[in-house]
Amino acid sequence: MMRVKLVVAYDGTDFCGWQLQPKQRTVEGELNRAICELTGEDIRVIGASRTDTGVHALGNVAVFDTESSIPADRFSYALNQKLPEDIRIQNSEEVSADFHPRHCVSVKTYEYSIFCAEFPVPTFSRYNYYTYSEPDVARMQKAAEGIVGTHDFTSFCSAKTDKEDKTRTVYSVSVAEESAICGKGRSIKIEVSGNGFLYNMVRIIAGTLLKVGTGGIEPEEIPSIIEAKDRTKAGPTLPPQGLMLREIVYKSQY
Amino acid sequence: MMRVKLVVAYDGTDFCGWQLQPKQRTVEGELNRAICELTGEDIRVIGASRTDTGVHALGNVAVFDTESSIPADRFSYALNQKLPEDIRIQNSEEVSADFHPRHCVSVKTYEYSIFCAEFPVPTFSRYNYYTYSEPDVARMQKAAEGIVGTHDFTSFCSAKTDKEDKTRTVYSVSVAEESAICGKGRSIKIEVSGNGFLYNMVRIIAGTLLKVGTGGIEPEEIPSIIEAKDRTKAGPTLPPQGLMLREIVYKSQY
Repeated sequence: MMRVKLVVAYDGTDFCGWQLQPKQRTVEGELNRAICELTGEDIRVIGASRTDTGVHALGNVAVFDTESSIPADRFSYALNQKLPEDIRIQNSEEVSADFHPRHCVSVKTYEYSIFCAEFPVPTFSRYNYYTYSEPDVARMQKAAEGIVGTHDFTSFCSAKTDKEDKTRTVYSVSVAEESAICGKGRSIKIEVSGNGFLYNMVRIIAGTLLKVGTGGIEPEEIPSIIEAKDRTKAGPTLPPQGLMLREIVYKSQY
Repeated sequence: MMRVKLVVAYDGTDFCGWQLQPKQRTVEGELNRAICELTGEDIRVIGASRTDTGVHALGNVAVFDTESSIPADRFSYALNQKLPEDIRIQNSEEVSADFHPRHCVSVKTYEYSIFCAEFPVPTFSRYNYYTYSEPDVARMQKAAEGIVGTHDFTSFCSAKTDKEDKTRTVYSVSVAEESAICGKGRSIKIEVSGNGFLYNMVRIIAGTLLKVGTGGIEPEEIPSIIEAKDRTKAGPTLPPQGLMLREIVYKSQY
């Protein structure tokens, strides 16, 4: 018996998110099907991040236990033969039996992409949030500093969930403007790293920073928005297509 | 009566190319439909570049003549209301009645995007050619120099067409490697500018440069490949999804 860790990239457009759901096309469902076909075992993966419908990933993580004699590092090649084109395993390796992708300490990095121009550009629409507004990136950068740290992020969590602990640590938030393509518009990337994120948290951080960029919130207000523990004080939840789970780095997995 | 020039961006994935064809979804067909709906006139646009199935554009150009009282610069907004999401007009303006998007002198710029990695990444697949090979960019850059200039490009034209003049002027060919994303693979961009291009010419240039990059052709062989006027001497035609018509700049249009 071995535990295999997969690094999973996908285009979220045509999935009802990560998590297994009856009669829906999900990333987890496709992975389970492919692994069962390959090994002949009845296997269900454990995923690191249950991304929402339409959210993309370069490096989500899943593990599964198998009695298969296929070497761990060959699962990437073998599974890619059985998976649809919008999922591609990037790496497979053996990890210790007690490695758990959600419980083990990790740093997750998400990127939210915004395209600002007079008109949308169709080849950007699948992976960017489009806005005709003209955000001030310097204001967004200043506001980003206020999000970093260990806080109760209730104001940045959309789910009306339970008594769950809403404290998370955000290690960094960067806002960068990339060079325009052929003088058409501006591309703004928001990169957020932390030890974990609440439901819709990155999309609400992006929506709040964009609102700061367009003047609806002052950069100095971020600490009081966090302090309020009130979802209505933060900005809107931006749509899923701009969000990409870039990477999950574990302190230890072997 | 006025002549209106449109700058047209599209995601080519779901189109059978630019040119009008019965019972096929084409960019020209969608433009004609939208313009007719808007003006009530029976109008057919004249396009600058008849891109192939699956080829994308940031800035293709089309013109049409209309008696409409809609100001020329408002057509962009009005047409975008009637066009599908995978076409977006970027600009509309009045041009002189003798401006013709194919006959007037212009500089066209195309970009071909290649993603090199051990495995494909789904969010790159729509706009990049994927290869597991590891091309040497310095070799590609050296070969690119040999393509620049005024030449008979028969070796770089796939169509078994007629006696048409195959002489074109290529102003520049650049090969650049962009920074990797999360250490995953390499992104190579080939940018080609010229006064016009033969059928599949940019995709054959890209395929030839990639073959140079992987050792199948020496950089010094490019002049003799051009000289041969023989399609079989050049590299393969790379697939359409990596190709983007970036921009068409006219010397004069007013």
